Amino acid sequence: MLDLARIRQAAARLDGIVHRTPVVTSSWLDQQLGARVFMKAECFQRAGAFKIRGAYNAIAALSPAERARGVVAWSSGNHAQAVALAARLFGVRAVIVMPKDAPATKLAATRGYGAEVVEYDRYTEDREAIARSIAARDGLAVVPAYDHYEVMAGQGTAALELVEQVADLDAILVPISGGGLIAGCATAAKAIRPTIEIYGVEPELGSDTKQSFDAGRRIEIPIPRTIADGLTVGIPGELTFPVVRALVADILLVSEAAIVEAMRTMFERVKLVVEPSGATTLAALSQHKARFAGKRVGLILSGGNVGVERFIELVSRKA
Amino acid sequence: MLDLARIRQAAARLDGIVHRTPVVTSSWLDQQLGARVFMKAECFQRAGAFKIRGAYNAIAALSPAERARGVVAWSSGNHAQAVALAARLFGVRAVIVMPKDAPATKLAATRGYGAEVVEYDRYTEDREAIARSIAARDGLAVVPAYDHYEVMAGQGTAALELVEQVADLDAILVPISGGGLIAGCATAAKAIRPTIEIYGVEPELGSDTKQSFDAGRRIEIPIPRTIADGLTVGIPGELTFPVVRALVADILLVSEAAIVEAMRTMFERVKLVVEPSGATTLAALSQHKARFAGKRVGLILSGGNVGVERFIELVSRKA
Repeated sequence: MLDLARIRQAAARLDGIVHRTPVVTSSWLDQQLGARVFMKAECFQRAGAFKIRGAYNAIAALSPAERARGVVAWSSGNHAQAVALAARLFGVRAVIVMPKDAPATKLAATRGYGAEVVEYDRYTEDREAIARSIAARDGLAVVPAYDHYEVMAGQGTAALELVEQVADLDAILVPISGGGLIAGCATAAKAIRPTIEIYGVEPELGSDTKQSFDAGRRIEIPIPRTIADGLTVGIPGELTFPVVRALVADILLVSEAAIVEAMRTMFERVKLVVEPSGATTLAALSQHKARFAGKRVGLILSGGNVGVERFIELVSRKA
Repeated sequence: MLDLARIRQAAARLDGIVHRTPVVTSSWLDQQLGARVFMKAECFQRAGAFKIRGAYNAIAALSPAERARGVVAWSSGNHAQAVALAARLFGVRAVIVMPKDAPATKLAATRGYGAEVVEYDRYTEDREAIARSIAARDGLAVVPAYDHYEVMAGQGTAALELVEQVADLDAILVPISGGGLIAGCATAAKAIRPTIEIYGVEPELGSDTKQSFDAGRRIEIPIPRTIADGLTVGIPGELTFPVVRALVADILLVSEAAIVEAMRTMFERVKLVVEPSGATTLAALSQHKARFAGKRVGLILSGGNVGVERFIELVSRKA
């Protein structure tokens, strides 16, 4: 079960390990949007994204004997580096299953944290099957990217901090991929402040959670082809979706152009580097401005892992 | 006279008006540089740079009657917007003398703060003479960019905060243009922690303070043509230079390529947008690494006013 107690336990484990990231404000942005905006800057988090919260908490929750054998995970993105870093902090083995055509920088960064990278062919092989067979063979614990209560609890500490850092928030906007971040954040924030409204944000090009939310059941779509490379899960999680249904006010969709525009605004006005997935919450606030007029709105800026060249490619696109 | 008492008085005036900007750290950077690095993120400051500290303090220090008549300043850069914003906060008139070929965004931003912009031709006209004649005609107070004790005291509050925020710093690196920022910062930091070493940073292409420092007298050079557009003063200030001579350990020079590389590192590793002038301190630490090995080093990231297009132009240059 996921509840506030579990998230507070995660917060205690993470204390002194992960950054209590700052909340950034911009009076220019407030004026433009007609709302008071509070941005939780997880781009400053260790390994560049919120993912370390869940990964570390999941490893911390293992028994000493399990942990000592090590962990395995699959990811082509921020979860890979988060598990690698968390395992290193515990001094245990980490095996990360990554597509062999993943960006060289990501493979290198994951290896840089001391993880063993097992490469697979994403067109012919099943990464989860590979990871589970390695887990069985070597007795490793699997650290899933979202469908796991300790992972969700860890991610929820981001919102726990935010509601402690900013009084009287009316709403929080959270990016959705598998749903681990929003499930944890909604659980923490609604427990502390029941009137707060939690909104999920998805790209228009990958609206599986929106469709599922409206239908009341998990709907699968083809792998989304969005620039928000952290939000390319095609179906809500089994454990996360019931939490989203129960606690989330609505799911907002954002266009690719609005995501790029939000990255540009973060750069020029807020002076922060935010990756496409992390910029979706500002994009949603801009695209759905009327709904939040006059409100105090928290935005989770989930990560900042975008290279200079990729940033240039994105902001140079024609709309 | 410039002393700690005057800087503390400035801090009291600025309290609740300007941001107490955060100090950002990066374990990756610490590892690369072999030092503990503490970055004072003035890119988050109001109007995007430290300049509001001095401008606001100078206007606050006027008598009520002087202030009511309004202020005049000349600048093509961050000081223009800072004086415009500070005057608006006091509800008084501001006239800013700006080159007519200044970037349209800067002219617009200054007007956006409610200032009257007087344009001049930088090849045929003398901006200071224009400003002083407007001052005389309308009874306005001049707010200089650096050669003024209240301006220097205001800028010094950046270092006052930094030494309060970070214990036991061994050194602080500060960009130098006219010298207002470093004069204030050196005065504050050395008064509180006499063993601290203050280093100035200049572009190799604009080393007037380095040359003056070594010669023991103010030397004028042609207007520097560096990408660090905030550091294009060709001679140290009359009031700032004696403070620099008395309190600064050395002046470090940085190459244009090192400035660009530092901007890139700030983007990819620290997730901060820093303008070329603001990136010079990280560039200096990288270029003069051995000198700071094992030390606790503060860097003033003086501002973040660089547009996306200009950033792309800079990082896309061939070295």
